[in-house]
Amino acid sequence: MKALFLSADHFEDTELLVPYYRLKEAGVDVDIASMRPGKLTGKHGYEVEASKSFDEVKAEEYGLLVLPGGGAPAAVRKEPAALAIARAFFADGKPVAAICHGPQILISADLIKGRHATCYSSVSSELKDAGAVYEDREVVVDGNLVSARSPADLPAFLREMMKRVPA
Amino acid sequence: MKALFLSADHFEDTELLVPYYRLKEAGVDVDIASMRPGKLTGKHGYEVEASKSFDEVKAEEYGLLVLPGGGAPAAVRKEPAALAIARAFFADGKPVAAICHGPQILISADLIKGRHATCYSSVSSELKDAGAVYEDREVVVDGNLVSARSPADLPAFLREMMKRVPA
Repeated sequence: MKALFLSADHFEDTELLVPYYRLKEAGVDVDIASMRPGKLTGKHGYEVEASKSFDEVKAEEYGLLVLPGGGAPAAVRKEPAALAIARAFFADGKPVAAICHGPQILISADLIKGRHATCYSSVSSELKDAGAVYEDREVVVDGNLVSARSPADLPAFLREMMKRVPA
Repeated sequence: MKALFLSADHFEDTELLVPYYRLKEAGVDVDIASMRPGKLTGKHGYEVEASKSFDEVKAEEYGLLVLPGGGAPAAVRKEPAALAIARAFFADGKPVAAICHGPQILISADLIKGRHATCYSSVSSELKDAGAVYEDREVVVDGNLVSARSPADLPAFLREMMKRVPA
């Protein structure tokens, strides 16, 4: 089982790093994809390495998709190859865990209509406009989709995300 | 079961926040103690709230002690009340998880002599001078003591730390 993160510069550091280390703790291989391979820098200055571009990703190799927040999703949502990855996960019913601004990627991929979800408060309007059933709770689970609002929700987000990782 | 962190300003953000969220994920109550109650700011700008001073801590209320790194341990190690907390955990054989510069607190508390341990590379000399058996590995376990070197070791550190948390 491998997990895939979609991100870019200006990621919210803990929203990427906490799930990343949590999955590694559980022995899960993690890849980070971005516009191009190489170093990504978070809002708080942490650096991570993207191992591949969105174009290079084979979605079928992964069992979990993680969409951290921060400023990164505003850039990622403009990338057709990133949206295609998200659509492939939904088409196969595979788990997708999105936090904070992460659901913006699902909005642009037109995957959120009719789904119960949450997100960062400032994103809630566009989430509702996209047809989602917005809920102001620490974590919302709807089928394959796990969503949370902010770093303070990470414990609940991790708990639901890890239920979807095969032991 | 409750866990206690000893820290101060200039903590290494991920070394505090990643174990903190991990314990909360598992339903563990976590307190952070410092010189005085109030806001602590990490090297990367994250803020956490210390709920009590070292003086106010009753070590017998806690089942796990976590010592994150960064610049904080250099200040914490000068506080006799913090050293007394560490000694109480060792006296009762309760688990202590220290990462990076965190073991400096154990050096000042005179708790490291003869113990197998690791730490941030620049701390290794004083760890050895204090009588520890230094090992350059991602995580070292010796009885109640779990130690690791740096943020990159967090997955292994969490894995061993969580084994010592009652389910």
